[in-house]
Amino acid sequence: MANSGSGDSVVDRVVRVIAAFPEGVLVLPLSELAARAQLPLTTAHRLVRQLAGHGLLELGAGGSVRLGLRLWELVNRNSPTLALREAAMPFMEDIQQVLNQNVNLAVLDGWDALFIERLSRRGSVANRAQIAGRMPVHVSSAGVALMAGQPPEVQAEYLRQFTDPAGKLRAADVRALLQESADQGFTALAGVVDPDTWGIAVPVRDARNRTVAALGVVVPPIEMRLQALVPALQTAARGIGRQLRREKSTGSFRSAESV
Amino acid sequence: MANSGSGDSVVDRVVRVIAAFPEGVLVLPLSELAARAQLPLTTAHRLVRQLAGHGLLELGAGGSVRLGLRLWELVNRNSPTLALREAAMPFMEDIQQVLNQNVNLAVLDGWDALFIERLSRRGSVANRAQIAGRMPVHVSSAGVALMAGQPPEVQAEYLRQFTDPAGKLRAADVRALLQESADQGFTALAGVVDPDTWGIAVPVRDARNRTVAALGVVVPPIEMRLQALVPALQTAARGIGRQLRREKSTGSFRSAESV
Repeated sequence: MANSGSGDSVVDRVVRVIAAFPEGVLVLPLSELAARAQLPLTTAHRLVRQLAGHGLLELGAGGSVRLGLRLWELVNRNSPTLALREAAMPFMEDIQQVLNQNVNLAVLDGWDALFIERLSRRGSVANRAQIAGRMPVHVSSAGVALMAGQPPEVQAEYLRQFTDPAGKLRAADVRALLQESADQGFTALAGVVDPDTWGIAVPVRDARNRTVAALGVVVPPIEMRLQALVPALQTAARGIGRQLRREKSTGSFRSAESV
Repeated sequence: MANSGSGDSVVDRVVRVIAAFPEGVLVLPLSELAARAQLPLTTAHRLVRQLAGHGLLELGAGGSVRLGLRLWELVNRNSPTLALREAAMPFMEDIQQVLNQNVNLAVLDGWDALFIERLSRRGSVANRAQIAGRMPVHVSSAGVALMAGQPPEVQAEYLRQFTDPAGKLRAADVRALLQESADQGFTALAGVVDPDTWGIAVPVRDARNRTVAALGVVVPPIEMRLQALVPALQTAARGIGRQLRREKSTGSFRSAESV
């Protein structure tokens, strides 16, 4: 029963409410939020009011609901991506300035590349305010570069469960992609979201030589000069790795490990 | 009792756990997290495990706890600040390029300016990965510019409760600051965190002429040329306001109102 739920189910419900907003949808009517969170309307309403009381949600006119500024603040002031983003940002700005291309930084989350930072080329319309997008490993250069740096058992598990919703790739094809990425030290893939672009990504390694991130650029085919792009990316990636080690040793974050 | 808490208290506890991390502290030992969240260790442990099961927290080696990548993703892909940041970012990049100064964007949250975006001057060591900082209204140029644009009843309420922890300013002084800001169309204040800097901020107004944000720069005294900085900021602020109106009218966000 909704009114006497155990601790478990209340936590579940809180998570379902926060996770109910589809990507890029900032505001939901309460009724739609309840449906997406699979909660009765009265339960959703009570939960939303509780969370709004703490600033984790905001209730707007006409029963519209959005994530609260307080939640945004709590998460971003202690972002789990902060150390990595702080180490990477100056190098990403260098790439943006020198190559004048869109630059991105991704981490592996499950079987996806999760993009945690993005800088647009100067004069481009797109901009980097929209972060936190994700793409399946096998369709993104960042994803392949990240997976290629994982331990063999992680790669094996990934390949075991792999199916391509588009029906184009088999696990053996992806295995070949990963091998190529490991051999070359980078991955270049034609764009999936935008076929008129290429993605190029290189691994970022920490002090223990673990691949903790992928640094990449997105370029139009005419600017697809690997001999210029790859060395610049690899140089920047080494700089980021060195910075991560430095932060760790100076203890500028009270963090046991980077990201 | 912890095990049979009502919905209310579970929500309260979830919020206390998420809010327990002090600014910039990425990792807490479980025992310290429990103490900060004012929860018995066993209760905290159970809650942390539940939240970790959903990816909202991450449990590290030796019982260390951090905010989860999943929580970061959920909040940032639907950030309540997204529309404003997307509208502002190209103009902030212009300011950064043209003036070569640190640029920031803040909104009013309670009696604080909450900084939602930041771009560093080129070559500066600080970088904008650390966002979500806040400063009291009366010590930040952004805060004064934001409060100066609020309706009279909000200003009156703010001034009524105002006390200066530093004991320097009286409410009448702050009222004069607000009046000056409204008259001039900008605020310039000597730095509090770093006394060797000045902050200059102008209001960003939406379609209904409401002050929804403050756009600002932080400059060393020697570069404190108001006659150059203020017009550039005001021009950019008008551009941001126009962009906010455009996004609203084209419905590029399913949002009833901006931020």
